[in-house]
Amino acid sequence: MLHLQAKTDARWFRQVDENLNDVLIDHAHCEKKAAGTALNLIFHYVEDRELCQEMTEIVNEELEHFHLVIDLLERRGVKFRRLKPSQYGRKLNDLCSKQEPQRAVDRLLVAGLIEARSCERFQALANYVEDEELATFYRSLFESEARHHATYTRLAMHFAPEKEVMQRLDELAALEAAIIAEGEELPRMHS
Amino acid sequence: MLHLQAKTDARWFRQVDENLNDVLIDHAHCEKKAAGTALNLIFHYVEDRELCQEMTEIVNEELEHFHLVIDLLERRGVKFRRLKPSQYGRKLNDLCSKQEPQRAVDRLLVAGLIEARSCERFQALANYVEDEELATFYRSLFESEARHHATYTRLAMHFAPEKEVMQRLDELAALEAAIIAEGEELPRMHS
Repeated sequence: MLHLQAKTDARWFRQVDENLNDVLIDHAHCEKKAAGTALNLIFHYVEDRELCQEMTEIVNEELEHFHLVIDLLERRGVKFRRLKPSQYGRKLNDLCSKQEPQRAVDRLLVAGLIEARSCERFQALANYVEDEELATFYRSLFESEARHHATYTRLAMHFAPEKEVMQRLDELAALEAAIIAEGEELPRMHS
Repeated sequence: MLHLQAKTDARWFRQVDENLNDVLIDHAHCEKKAAGTALNLIFHYVEDRELCQEMTEIVNEELEHFHLVIDLLERRGVKFRRLKPSQYGRKLNDLCSKQEPQRAVDRLLVAGLIEARSCERFQALANYVEDEELATFYRSLFESEARHHATYTRLAMHFAPEKEVMQRLDELAALEAAIIAEGEELPRMHS
């Protein structure tokens, strides 16, 4: 359902053990960036009514989640602050074609893969942590990430036939798996 | 209440007479841009919790209005399309200081002045047009623009003392009045 080609491995769980708070703070920033991505897609494909409607819902939901994460941080006494972002999003965005309409397909599929990876990580985190509040919180979020992944994949088919979209999703998912397997030193939601 | 230093004059009403549909289409784009402005402010001042909460509400409202305008266009049989934007927003943004925290004050006040001008134009349009649907529509929107203006002005006081903020608002309002008096050839919401 999520089209991911690699599972989160032990390396990331070690990062969570070493600096859970930075992963949580980064998560708030990720929700904010997800709202930005959806709004950018409205700006670029403003004549596609269904896309604008779906992106509006995603902007609203991501900003709601952003505030939920900040509330969670507050309850845990963790100060929310700026954080150097992971390179994950940039590496994926670099894979997008510069030529329309392929660029639209790629941007939507990449946005969908990021949602899919978030979904997988939220689930992994919920199962991994012993803290019940945290586990419940991440279980409450992962359904919407899965739904967003499906929405992005479906909207990509406004710009290319289904067969081409699914082939490209396979290619991008393989590249995403390689990026996530390579990992990053900073402990982040997508490191 | 709106801190505007010039009223919309006969020149703009002539543009409305000549090309009402382009003004309406431009209005949809303005709502989208207003959502973008509010989200950008979250990105830049993410550690200001109240600002992030208020901007989230504004993003949601502006996107709701964006869809309301597109629905209105559909009902009127006007095809929504891309449009060359007016220079109004760019001219105002060029007035913003490059140095923080003055830049924050200026960006918030400029965003608030744009809301104030939209409010004034919506009211002017509602009183001017004979079309009852259009008049009712613009009357229904202008309260939120006035509220947004007040919110932006209040948030500017997070970055400078009230007296300085109000002095700067006076300066920027005078410059805004000059820009609007100069006008633009293309018929737009802020031409």
